[in-house]
Amino acid sequence: MGRMKYSIGIDLGGTFIKMGIVNEKGKIIKKVEIESKAKEGPKEVIKQLKQGIKLVLANNLKKIEGIGIGSPGLINSKKGVVENPPNFPGWEKVNLKKIIEKEFDIPTEIENDANAAAVGELIYGAGKKLKSFLMVTLGTGVGGGIIYNNKVFRGDTGAAGEVGHITIDHNGDPCNCGSLGCIESYVGNNYLTQRIKKDLRQNPDSAIIKLVEGDMKKISPRIVHEAALLDDPFAKQVIADTGNKLGHALASAINVLDIANIIIGGGVAGFGKLLFDSVEHSAKERVLIPIKPRIKVYPAKLKNEAGIKGASALVFYKS
Amino acid sequence: MGRMKYSIGIDLGGTFIKMGIVNEKGKIIKKVEIESKAKEGPKEVIKQLKQGIKLVLANNLKKIEGIGIGSPGLINSKKGVVENPPNFPGWEKVNLKKIIEKEFDIPTEIENDANAAAVGELIYGAGKKLKSFLMVTLGTGVGGGIIYNNKVFRGDTGAAGEVGHITIDHNGDPCNCGSLGCIESYVGNNYLTQRIKKDLRQNPDSAIIKLVEGDMKKISPRIVHEAALLDDPFAKQVIADTGNKLGHALASAINVLDIANIIIGGGVAGFGKLLFDSVEHSAKERVLIPIKPRIKVYPAKLKNEAGIKGASALVFYKS
Repeated sequence: MGRMKYSIGIDLGGTFIKMGIVNEKGKIIKKVEIESKAKEGPKEVIKQLKQGIKLVLANNLKKIEGIGIGSPGLINSKKGVVENPPNFPGWEKVNLKKIIEKEFDIPTEIENDANAAAVGELIYGAGKKLKSFLMVTLGTGVGGGIIYNNKVFRGDTGAAGEVGHITIDHNGDPCNCGSLGCIESYVGNNYLTQRIKKDLRQNPDSAIIKLVEGDMKKISPRIVHEAALLDDPFAKQVIADTGNKLGHALASAINVLDIANIIIGGGVAGFGKLLFDSVEHSAKERVLIPIKPRIKVYPAKLKNEAGIKGASALVFYKS
Repeated sequence: MGRMKYSIGIDLGGTFIKMGIVNEKGKIIKKVEIESKAKEGPKEVIKQLKQGIKLVLANNLKKIEGIGIGSPGLINSKKGVVENPPNFPGWEKVNLKKIIEKEFDIPTEIENDANAAAVGELIYGAGKKLKSFLMVTLGTGVGGGIIYNNKVFRGDTGAAGEVGHITIDHNGDPCNCGSLGCIESYVGNNYLTQRIKKDLRQNPDSAIIKLVEGDMKKISPRIVHEAALLDDPFAKQVIADTGNKLGHALASAINVLDIANIIIGGGVAGFGKLLFDSVEHSAKERVLIPIKPRIKVYPAKLKNEAGIKGASALVFYKS
């Protein structure tokens, strides 16, 4: 066996900055987590990044091939510039690549966090054997990234893959983005949880209520999944309906992209196999006939610390 | 000025096979049109193709750089194989590239007709100065092709760009494809014309009726456009509604692709500037904020014989 390779992955967030040394199989061997001072502007965040990297590198004997950063906002990954990340006031344009490379003399790659998650699955996860796939992240928001022929498909500005803002009903519910009927407004975590809490009033016998011992704050996709496995009709219907709507939205994307492999991760993916089956079924039902037999939905493999792992994968993906 | 280059473009259709010699500026200098014997199987069509090319080449003194073929169906453009084109019984897989190259010793390129139309606009038309755009063809069907960084974005099988089957209402009208609420089921030519005829009963004063002199068979997008220019409220409403729905569908595609330039051609584009403005306005309204300022809708420049021109452009595009 050849010598194992290592990189540093940095998950730059508005709440936490997480980073770690990751081996080329996607295993984190050292981790640092810092509360993000995003509100204090770029200078402070850059200081935090440098301190964090120094902490990660302290006592490290492994050769580090590179540093990968997954960041929110508009990223020019060629130049390494991060533009106006949401929740990072005062940024405008910051050339993070240059700054980090100058400080540490280690090659640095930057991508937006959705694309980094897709690269993570490509290098370490469910996309290892796929040439092209659509990565969907189901969290508070519904995000995504496109891998096409083993490369990130970036579009004009690197923002491609925003599957959360495919509309399934152009006269539908208002979405945070300003449009109507976006799939995010139906299956985003907050919306979903709200809806479940509301609908549970009409379903007082649901196993969900027993599982959370009456504490509605404990309701999560995992709990709903558990209830569904106990054959709870309400829980099963919530998951089927979520999968159905998501499948319909993805069918539009699949017809446009002619990419039939879908990887789904994020918190709402805690709905489990029932969700994946429902998405696969309803997408198959709606796509053009020649595409139907190729539709395949996979659960994401990177779960905990997917952000660090995805960012670290940018290094191995480039090389 | 250097010597002008020439290619042969072939528009392989189920009703007509059209071909011509086209110069590198997109001008057809000789044309042949044959009634397609598609129903009689691939051997007969191949015979027609060879005869047609011989006719086009007769007395030709220009050097021909290559032959481009735009074909319906699933195309493996690398291998040059045409698979099961709709309305061409008995094809399964035919390596047209090999057959034509063997007969004429001229390099031959094959693409599906929607992608060829996009390449036509890229090389000769509205896409000449664009690196990436989404080509939309509004006819009986609503088709499309994607140009990304000056190349056809093909997806898994070359079928990418099927914008006609983006749903705008997942519980909406049934589409011929088997899904519900596809944009094609609202703005496809047949559907539109039917709807206009029906709605005219409630609008007996519409200028459309005067323009067609009461002959409802004469109703066409151009006539509706003419009526709209006469300030006919019904005609203006039809065009605005068409543009609105199309804009909403395209917003989904634009959010996924992060490609903000749209070129629109085909018969329904006869609605004219009113349609383009309406599409641009409603797409802008619905896409994610960072994309809004970049949205631009262009009318296609290739109109008559766009099929021949697009196919011929495959030669100049590859070289």
